Amino acid sequence: MSFIIREGQKEDMQNVMHLIKELALFEKLPNEVEVTEVDLIKDGFSEHPKFKTFVAEENNKIVGTALFYERYSTWKGRVVHLEDLIVTKHKRGFGIGIALYKSVLKYAYDLGAKRVVWDVLSWNKNAIDFYKSTGATVLEDWQVVHMKEHDLKNFIES
Amino acid sequence: MSFIIREGQKEDMQNVMHLIKELALFEKLPNEVEVTEVDLIKDGFSEHPKFKTFVAEENNKIVGTALFYERYSTWKGRVVHLEDLIVTKHKRGFGIGIALYKSVLKYAYDLGAKRVVWDVLSWNKNAIDFYKSTGATVLEDWQVVHMKEHDLKNFIES
Repeated sequence: MSFIIREGQKEDMQNVMHLIKELALFEKLPNEVEVTEVDLIKDGFSEHPKFKTFVAEENNKIVGTALFYERYSTWKGRVVHLEDLIVTKHKRGFGIGIALYKSVLKYAYDLGAKRVVWDVLSWNKNAIDFYKSTGATVLEDWQVVHMKEHDLKNFIES
Repeated sequence: MSFIIREGQKEDMQNVMHLIKELALFEKLPNEVEVTEVDLIKDGFSEHPKFKTFVAEENNKIVGTALFYERYSTWKGRVVHLEDLIVTKHKRGFGIGIALYKSVLKYAYDLGAKRVVWDVLSWNKNAIDFYKSTGATVLEDWQVVHMKEHDLKNFIES
């Protein structure tokens, strides 16, 4: 099996959208996906792109993607956040995920980022073991807080 | 006591830096702060600013700040991340923190953000209770992963 990793282009967003939906379906939350292909093109390829992607391509087919963007730490400065890394189900186990992961880390390294950050499900032991094996640290005493759109609306309008 | 909340300007970054350092000193990690006033000005006020701030001003003195920026969710789209919210020690308990918090949420609401996200220390029960009282959700099954600069360098160069 041979694949290449390259930066995602506008024309790839249809396939990136398929991968996003495939993962949401697998997680049994397909209705949670509100983003559309049009949004991805608008938000990722405007004058101020809100994210970048790498895609894994095999025989001209997109079989995986990583979506990432910059954040900012008040202590460290420029930080890269890996938002999502998806490999289509029947192409897992061939090193595509690791190749995408490395590409994002290499991008961050070349950028001079002070840190790369992402979230992991706490029960996903395989993922956590893999991340640790590459030198990453799983923070034990921080939790993620979300103010959802509906709750934000309630808070502001009340 | 009367204060105003306004968007932070270049000229405020010296005071914002003082607040960042005050917090780091309180957390007994002053040496972890690598960012300088020059970095804040460069990164926050260039053609593509990496963050925005609100500052709380009382009698022409900056007594608090919130630093935030946009992120991107593959499911929801545009998201606002609240990176840090700091009120100088002797001005806590007067509602300045809540006013800064509200300002960031209002900014996200006006932007049409689909979610506001931040991290909290899991033992900080007061903060968690406050966030929940405003409608926020503390995610129970996600953990934050950091690849630090030194480990990133090791991973890429090995």
